[in-house]
Amino acid sequence: MKTLTENIGLYTDFYELTMAQGYFLSGKKDEKTVFDYYYRTNPFKGGYLVFAGLYDLLTILKNFKYSKENIDYLRKAGLQEPFLEYLKDFKFTAKVYSVREGEIVFPNEPLVRIEGNIIEAQLIETLLLNYLNFQSLIATKACRIKEVMGEKSFADFGLRRAQGLGGIHASRAAVIGGASATSNVYSGFIYDIPLSGTQAHAWVQSFDSELEAFRKYAAINPNTSVLLVDTYNTLKSGVPNAIKVAKELEEKGKKLVGIRLDSGDLAYLSKKARKMLDDAGLDYVSIFVSNQLNEHVIKSLNEQGARIDGYGVGTELVIGKDTGAIDGVYKLVENNGIPRLKISENVEKITMPGTKRLVRYFDKKDRFYRDGILLSDEKSVDKLYHPIHAHKNTEVSELRTEELSQLVMDNGKILIDYETPLQINKYMQKRFAQLPIEHKRFISPHIYKVGISEKLMNLRNDMMESIRKKYTEQ
Amino acid sequence: MKTLTENIGLYTDFYELTMAQGYFLSGKKDEKTVFDYYYRTNPFKGGYLVFAGLYDLLTILKNFKYSKENIDYLRKAGLQEPFLEYLKDFKFTAKVYSVREGEIVFPNEPLVRIEGNIIEAQLIETLLLNYLNFQSLIATKACRIKEVMGEKSFADFGLRRAQGLGGIHASRAAVIGGASATSNVYSGFIYDIPLSGTQAHAWVQSFDSELEAFRKYAAINPNTSVLLVDTYNTLKSGVPNAIKVAKELEEKGKKLVGIRLDSGDLAYLSKKARKMLDDAGLDYVSIFVSNQLNEHVIKSLNEQGARIDGYGVGTELVIGKDTGAIDGVYKLVENNGIPRLKISENVEKITMPGTKRLVRYFDKKDRFYRDGILLSDEKSVDKLYHPIHAHKNTEVSELRTEELSQLVMDNGKILIDYETPLQINKYMQKRFAQLPIEHKRFISPHIYKVGISEKLMNLRNDMMESIRKKYTEQ
Repeated sequence: MKTLTENIGLYTDFYELTMAQGYFLSGKKDEKTVFDYYYRTNPFKGGYLVFAGLYDLLTILKNFKYSKENIDYLRKAGLQEPFLEYLKDFKFTAKVYSVREGEIVFPNEPLVRIEGNIIEAQLIETLLLNYLNFQSLIATKACRIKEVMGEKSFADFGLRRAQGLGGIHASRAAVIGGASATSNVYSGFIYDIPLSGTQAHAWVQSFDSELEAFRKYAAINPNTSVLLVDTYNTLKSGVPNAIKVAKELEEKGKKLVGIRLDSGDLAYLSKKARKMLDDAGLDYVSIFVSNQLNEHVIKSLNEQGARIDGYGVGTELVIGKDTGAIDGVYKLVENNGIPRLKISENVEKITMPGTKRLVRYFDKKDRFYRDGILLSDEKSVDKLYHPIHAHKNTEVSELRTEELSQLVMDNGKILIDYETPLQINKYMQKRFAQLPIEHKRFISPHIYKVGISEKLMNLRNDMMESIRKKYTEQ
Repeated sequence: MKTLTENIGLYTDFYELTMAQGYFLSGKKDEKTVFDYYYRTNPFKGGYLVFAGLYDLLTILKNFKYSKENIDYLRKAGLQEPFLEYLKDFKFTAKVYSVREGEIVFPNEPLVRIEGNIIEAQLIETLLLNYLNFQSLIATKACRIKEVMGEKSFADFGLRRAQGLGGIHASRAAVIGGASATSNVYSGFIYDIPLSGTQAHAWVQSFDSELEAFRKYAAINPNTSVLLVDTYNTLKSGVPNAIKVAKELEEKGKKLVGIRLDSGDLAYLSKKARKMLDDAGLDYVSIFVSNQLNEHVIKSLNEQGARIDGYGVGTELVIGKDTGAIDGVYKLVENNGIPRLKISENVEKITMPGTKRLVRYFDKKDRFYRDGILLSDEKSVDKLYHPIHAHKNTEVSELRTEELSQLVMDNGKILIDYETPLQINKYMQKRFAQLPIEHKRFISPHIYKVGISEKLMNLRNDMMESIRKKYTEQ
């Protein structure tokens, strides 16, 4: 099989290659460019995004190259010889500036900045978008799911319904956002994530009786068994049989970990099952649930007094239902030291020119107050302006600030330490606690304000004006 | 990097491994089982599914194994020594029966059947679901998109918004369902799909003027240029500049292929642009459009008289918006020759027991009339019954039939020929033409009827009755 690892340079859109060839053949190959990655709309009609995917991206950028077989393929696809020769020794050497993985971020903020020659910066566009858009989507979904369950925990059970190989990234991002474990063994293996697993209906069905199936499983896994109780009848058969087995385990000095409900009314069944377990003196046996869960269902189950100790969340987590894709884009903002702008037919698609900084301002309680986009040569500003309506502006001169972006890769070398998804989640939790609650609402969250500096505003306005003149009055 | 290719045995849910260990340790490892793959709900509120993902699945099953490093990892994850020893030599040897890729299929039909020992059949569950659910979703989406454009064609532009590595599978499935090309170079490379690509705004922005950007691109790609005309102002700058360049190309005996609109009102702009091009004697220059397209937008553009020659479809195609995931499941239906049934708390989750055949019945115009699920030892039946309401039944004895499922893999060997995604699409087109139009409606399509044989109905009813007695009266 032809693995992605051996063919990373091909993980791109064809037009990146035809444009790169164009830059090369028109003598632009050493032009210095700056590209920004940003997104336009918060997923799930929410108020924020959990930024994720960075370390995976840097790892693959490090290995971005073209094999002889790749070159041969691109020749057949119509690319020309001098450019193909150039690709043979291609390496990604650009500077990558980025906000930290697990950071809470907002629309139109420059989250990642690539500074390099125009060819390398162009070729990696698709790859960068593919990695960051998806993992940020799933980390955000996981954050929302974790938020509604308080101290309780959930595991990612989504691989079977994930979008093909996207499941590999989904499990990593789910843990960054709040899952404490995954059922996905491959992702556990490559990303160092704790594994979670109980049993399926097939186990129960493969025995002549449910009780025998439970007994056999508990005998083999005396300290880790979670029994699936809904294969035939949850309350009349599954729970009573689980209680029998738990009692038999007690006689051997062992403890049943829990039962799992996977169908029916989880609120009703969990309350009934809790009572049956408690009445049998099994208050230590946990109740886990699964079956098409999401943040809304879990919130509703809690409100109805469901007695649930842990959740398995699958489909809706790993596909980021209902959003499905972050609208992240990667735009050229400077070329050969000259800021560049794109107008487009849709106002919201107008870009923010120049090399920029992203600064966060904190209130007196150390909560997020405003984010500001400044030109990179601006040390600090007193005021932030609304990106479109300049009469709306805020004084920020007295506030504590943090630089959100740092140099994370240079000349092919990754400059940040590796962290496991659970470690990244620790940072995410800290930051999420600093986000004021009004931005966390599921329905009509308050919009977190991101302002721009006066210099950036003026640069943008001047450029829009001159472009309008140049291209509409010719 | 640890590639999937080297670690396929880990591409599974952890509980598949703990159950497999359980089967092994409880002396069941050689028990013969039968599992069915089927789905419950048509995606997109539509009337059918385009089955896809099979050849990819067979390829990965062929290579399903555990390396020494995998075994070490699973030991740390808590699996026990005798079972780990067994995994060292594990190979997937089961029989795989399947409908053909590109087939039009319906809910609750056994699409794939795995007959093997209980361990191999269990271990591959997650992998099978992950591959088939997703590619079938995307092939179906692509089929819907192609349907609304008639003879026109579209390319998959979705990699940047795809769900991480899911983009690799998405492009293959998109072509099976109806895309004629992809921008995804890696998928083009591994699956032999034609590539498609134009240019991005970055190309235009990197030059001092739009006209210069167009001229340079056309000089390098004199026979394949599609110019992106919305960077500054579509009708006042982009289209006039494209016309200039087209005329300059004509002087050199070359032809501009087309222009691309990527923002604004595509109906209005395409009509205006068409007139401007025609007035300049450039009726051969095509108009391509992109920007958040889906089957509904394209249908609506057509209804409004848009002058569009081809489409680039991205996000909504490759994430299968709004469905996002097929609810495909993989259920044990027979063990050691004895049919098995699962009841569950939700009626629609009750399984169909035993080893079964899937037969299609055709009407006199050779269109699909009914599908029937029969027990595998039934040669033919006269009547098909509604799966739940037995009084609803249909005479089928006089109809032409086709067996939909065939043996596609045995003892690790793939028994079908490799086909490219475009070749599979040819078959899909043929079959789609045989599907009566009332099942193709986007809104409330007529439900295609899938019946069961009397013997299967009786088997299921008897089993349900005896399970109810056994598990609710104890």
